Amino acid sequence: MRPIVGLDWGTSSLRAALFDAQGRVTQERSLPRGILTVPPGGFPAVFNDACGDWMRGGKALALVAGMAGSRQGWVEAPYCACPAGFGDIAARLAWAEPGRIAIVPGLSCEAEGVPDVMRGEETQVFGAMQLLGLDSGLFVLPGTHSKWVRVAAGRIEGFETFMTGEFYGLLRQHSILARSLPDGVGDTDAQAFERGVQHAIQVGNLLHAAFSARTLALFDRMPAAALPSYLSGLVIGEELRSQHLGALSEPVTVIGSPALAPRYELALRALGVPVQSAGSQATWRGLWAMARTLEHLA
Amino acid sequence: MRPIVGLDWGTSSLRAALFDAQGRVTQERSLPRGILTVPPGGFPAVFNDACGDWMRGGKALALVAGMAGSRQGWVEAPYCACPAGFGDIAARLAWAEPGRIAIVPGLSCEAEGVPDVMRGEETQVFGAMQLLGLDSGLFVLPGTHSKWVRVAAGRIEGFETFMTGEFYGLLRQHSILARSLPDGVGDTDAQAFERGVQHAIQVGNLLHAAFSARTLALFDRMPAAALPSYLSGLVIGEELRSQHLGALSEPVTVIGSPALAPRYELALRALGVPVQSAGSQATWRGLWAMARTLEHLA
Repeated sequence: MRPIVGLDWGTSSLRAALFDAQGRVTQERSLPRGILTVPPGGFPAVFNDACGDWMRGGKALALVAGMAGSRQGWVEAPYCACPAGFGDIAARLAWAEPGRIAIVPGLSCEAEGVPDVMRGEETQVFGAMQLLGLDSGLFVLPGTHSKWVRVAAGRIEGFETFMTGEFYGLLRQHSILARSLPDGVGDTDAQAFERGVQHAIQVGNLLHAAFSARTLALFDRMPAAALPSYLSGLVIGEELRSQHLGALSEPVTVIGSPALAPRYELALRALGVPVQSAGSQATWRGLWAMARTLEHLA
Repeated sequence: MRPIVGLDWGTSSLRAALFDAQGRVTQERSLPRGILTVPPGGFPAVFNDACGDWMRGGKALALVAGMAGSRQGWVEAPYCACPAGFGDIAARLAWAEPGRIAIVPGLSCEAEGVPDVMRGEETQVFGAMQLLGLDSGLFVLPGTHSKWVRVAAGRIEGFETFMTGEFYGLLRQHSILARSLPDGVGDTDAQAFERGVQHAIQVGNLLHAAFSARTLALFDRMPAAALPSYLSGLVIGEELRSQHLGALSEPVTVIGSPALAPRYELALRALGVPVQSAGSQATWRGLWAMARTLEHLA
């Protein structure tokens, strides 16, 4: 088998991994070279900086997931429409260098008359399915733009984006609520966080629920140090409110960063929803599995 | 009757009016001296700049509504708890100068275990009730923080704040959506606006619905020039979604600025809800009616 290299190339960062023949990561690197930092025509040079040494000899195969496949990226990999399985994505790779560097397409779906999109998360979901031995379920990928992904019989049926992380940042930094909140990042106050989750679900509208962060401060009903956790609970609770979690027969799989995943797990458990987790290895496993599929096809 | 002066003293602006004996405004002034611009101890001087000439001779009575009664204002006028009628507010005025300058208290209420507050809108609601001959109904005051106010038998029973205008500004200026939206303020695109209203209601969660402004642009399904109106429809639709408008037997009364009120009227009519309006005169009528009440009590 050829040496396999995986890249997770997002908007603001670039991670690269070299795999051994069993799919284990033997080397991993991180560069502050998200696609927004790459000038036109500059993608091959940044790729070489990241993993040119691993590609030497011409035998290696590199697979790239994430925003590198967007219109502002290296080579546009058109969105693959849902429902889409692993094989559909493998058949729609965009080759930056034929036979050598392939870009994984993102997915699109349509609901309520408007499209939704993701790039990179599809690879994480397929990787998590491999790691956990799943072929169906509900997956959440917390982030600036969280994704909720429904999988059945090995195919991604559809998904929804929630701008949760971005709304939190806007409210935290730029809104009137920022005046009541302390600077800096403190530890999570689990009690305030859970109160926020419950309040958002009870109220059912973040435009109204968010104002409670101001009035609780105004009436000295919550210490300032607890308000960021409360606000985080409000936005995550608002996201969870739309998920029909009561109808689930299987645990929700949280695929996320060490910073965010524990908050989602805390919120889901507080609502009585069973949870399982897959970490940052999900991307690597997804890319490696896709490379193996290509090798078998070749 | 003594000469009556009314002030609408908010966070970012100050308006003053002089009334005749029938409550008509004979002079009106506007100053860029919201309470945030007033240094500690500076309120009497700004008041004199605004209407000192109208107060000369010592006979006039001035009534002040708005954030001038907040903790950061001239004299704190503690919130009056709902349900509260016109008489409850008149009995709880805070006197900046005894017998001469009174500040109208704001209102507070409690729901879902958290407080809500307003300052200034209570005066607009009582003024609109006088102007329209109402003693009950549902009132909306669009703005940075919109208020929905329920009135029964002449008393404000309760209300809810929605951070609609603020969320719009955050998304318009600071979010990823800002990249797809044109600079500047164009005319309202009524069709895009109504589509936004309907989409927000259909989706039922702004964290998800807001992302459609990005994907509609990404797939060239909506021209960039229409996106600000669409986004405005999304946030206003999200606000209206929580109002149980189907159960109303009377029109909703919109009390608002010429900039915002027409959008709310358009959205409500698109949802089949009857609407009536009261304009910026509502504050003046409310203040004048309160002054008359005081004169009768004296």
